[in-house]
Amino acid sequence: MSDNNGLSYLESLGAAAKAAAAITASLPTAQKNEVLLKCAAALEEKSGEILAANDKDMSGAVSAGIKASFLDRLKLDKKRVFGMADGLRQVAGLPDPVGEAISMKTLPNGLIVQNVRVPMGVIGMIYEARPNVTADAFGLCFKAGSAVILRGGKEAIGSNRAIVAVFHGVLAEFGLPTGIVQLIEDTSREVARDFMRLNKYVDLLIPRGGAGLIQSVVENSAIPVIETGVGNCHIFVDESADFGKAVPIIVNAKVQRPSVCNACEKVLVHRAVAEEFLPLVGKALADNKVEIRGDEAAVRLIPGAIPALEEDWPREYGELIIAVKVVDSLDEAIAHIRKYTSHHSEAILSNDYANIQRFTREIDSAAVYANASTRFTDGGEFGMGAEIGISTRKLPGLGPMGLREITSSKYIIFGDGQVRK
Amino acid sequence: MSDNNGLSYLESLGAAAKAAAAITASLPTAQKNEVLLKCAAALEEKSGEILAANDKDMSGAVSAGIKASFLDRLKLDKKRVFGMADGLRQVAGLPDPVGEAISMKTLPNGLIVQNVRVPMGVIGMIYEARPNVTADAFGLCFKAGSAVILRGGKEAIGSNRAIVAVFHGVLAEFGLPTGIVQLIEDTSREVARDFMRLNKYVDLLIPRGGAGLIQSVVENSAIPVIETGVGNCHIFVDESADFGKAVPIIVNAKVQRPSVCNACEKVLVHRAVAEEFLPLVGKALADNKVEIRGDEAAVRLIPGAIPALEEDWPREYGELIIAVKVVDSLDEAIAHIRKYTSHHSEAILSNDYANIQRFTREIDSAAVYANASTRFTDGGEFGMGAEIGISTRKLPGLGPMGLREITSSKYIIFGDGQVRK
Repeated sequence: MSDNNGLSYLESLGAAAKAAAAITASLPTAQKNEVLLKCAAALEEKSGEILAANDKDMSGAVSAGIKASFLDRLKLDKKRVFGMADGLRQVAGLPDPVGEAISMKTLPNGLIVQNVRVPMGVIGMIYEARPNVTADAFGLCFKAGSAVILRGGKEAIGSNRAIVAVFHGVLAEFGLPTGIVQLIEDTSREVARDFMRLNKYVDLLIPRGGAGLIQSVVENSAIPVIETGVGNCHIFVDESADFGKAVPIIVNAKVQRPSVCNACEKVLVHRAVAEEFLPLVGKALADNKVEIRGDEAAVRLIPGAIPALEEDWPREYGELIIAVKVVDSLDEAIAHIRKYTSHHSEAILSNDYANIQRFTREIDSAAVYANASTRFTDGGEFGMGAEIGISTRKLPGLGPMGLREITSSKYIIFGDGQVRK
Repeated sequence: MSDNNGLSYLESLGAAAKAAAAITASLPTAQKNEVLLKCAAALEEKSGEILAANDKDMSGAVSAGIKASFLDRLKLDKKRVFGMADGLRQVAGLPDPVGEAISMKTLPNGLIVQNVRVPMGVIGMIYEARPNVTADAFGLCFKAGSAVILRGGKEAIGSNRAIVAVFHGVLAEFGLPTGIVQLIEDTSREVARDFMRLNKYVDLLIPRGGAGLIQSVVENSAIPVIETGVGNCHIFVDESADFGKAVPIIVNAKVQRPSVCNACEKVLVHRAVAEEFLPLVGKALADNKVEIRGDEAAVRLIPGAIPALEEDWPREYGELIIAVKVVDSLDEAIAHIRKYTSHHSEAILSNDYANIQRFTREIDSAAVYANASTRFTDGGEFGMGAEIGISTRKLPGLGPMGLREITSSKYIIFGDGQVRK
């Protein structure tokens, strides 16, 4: 399939996005905010059309025999549509990162060298069933001065089309091109693969979804990727921990919302306090209906705990299951975490200065806590506003990826005739 | 090929590097500097052995009929070896980026959230014939707290082995593991391909060399890549330019060192001043033995200029050739540059405030200049110290990649029992 200019379907989308990105890059913040607020209002006004399209997607998915947890992610109702609108309003309220100075200095030869934050250009999103990602991704990318190309799951195509149509209507009112947000209509795997090779047009690719999707993008993309990820999060209780704080932190980290990636999956306890601490935390977890798996010592000390298998240690449960291990030292705790971590969130519960210093330095995860629940790893909680995910790779950096993290930077140099000697 | 632990050859290197990176990450700056200074001294002391190994590499390359420009890059002499040593001393003198705070704030719930600069971990380098890259890459990666795995060109294997042996000797004196710097001994293309898939162990991959090598890495790597690049750099002379400054800037940007990526390859001149300016700049370039290619108007106005072909516009010459085009407007200049740029360095020569504002905002290259030579795009010139290359991709950011740019970042959060509501 190719258009009049001999471009393939994806290349046409890429070219339209690149042209649109040249426009969004220069839009004043006030105008971007106005567009976002109008889009929010339009989502609410047109919620009937969006829900009708979603109904059809749901029927199709039900007929295809798709499982309940997937259907729950696909399903929209009025509350969820209004939630998307509120998300856009929140993004409108965030500071605009574009044009921030990262550094500025005057060189001995008089050149003024500025390092400034600039829009990324064209951002690609590959995601699964959740139609709300369509609105979230548009909001963040647009506010950050970029155009976005969306490739959602095939089951959600009708819902996504309806949401994007609402945005196109608003963009048209402002005389802005539809290339600012485009949906890939062909949801085949082949087109998804080709999309990952579109590095001539796309500056950044962000996968959102399960581990399989993310790995496929990391393995196959020729476009730089932000790897957002799986959370196999650990809490280490050392011998100086305050039990009165440690038990509520572990319960909170496991129970408050077990399906999310910053929930705690593993507890390591120093042998010196295991005898006293494990029955306490074991009871509190059991009271909250958590299934406990453990190594030999943990099973001995926690009534009802069952033996953990080797495959438990690298696993993200995403439900009310936790695995507990007794360790002989901080060294063993650090070595265990370094071996099994998914580089998301880990905590040490301790009152020992040197142990906290070592743990926070040597664990290379996105968020390393001393004496707090891992559940805080989130752009909103960190005061960054909305986020597009938590990066668990060293490049471009670990942690929540907010508006600033989906921009780029360049150098602008002001001279007065300088030449190099 | 696999070792006792069932790891392949590359996996063993990866595992050794990962273990070494856990050590380098915590080395105090003073010790890293001491190691670097010892390595510099050792390179000088052992220069005889390095030059002997290089002689063999050179004989092999000559027998293989390899061309002169390649041989020049492969060739070492005492001056070049001492130059590598001085490079390490410079790196020892640079500030250590590890442990810098990027931001720090206290949240309403009392959590102290720090975003801190941390080592990348394991860095891979893929490069061609220059043995000096071996020393440069080791110096920068080690100072930035990372381990490095080097895959140099097959013609330079003896020289690279000799240089790495010197570093291993010094590391042993300090009781540090050789996993800090390792050379891939198998220089086959297959192993290079496999190296690009080693994302389980390698956090960042940096290609250095020609456009073909860099494209191959970008297309095939499952590891995040810093794309350093080709420079098809443009200078635009608008109708308000000061000719007395514009002519020397263009001559400097073309002539001072034509083989490097920040040299000027294209000049765009506003039609309103073409008649007056082109004969001036044409003469100055011709006096410096520059071959001039031009569009119709440029050929008419510059004696000796020959017609440019379409293939000239995207090309990086790397020698004393320049192509000149007359444009009707700033819009046309910006559109031409956006179409053909390699996103390296571009300049506007102008006294018009609005034009300079638009040009510096709308051109998305690593370095965008007003009224200065493009030749300044360089980590050293920008006051960052040594660099590993100029990034021409939006992620992780455009511009010279110095010590700070080859680190990562993570969040450290200090609490006092906080749980999420």
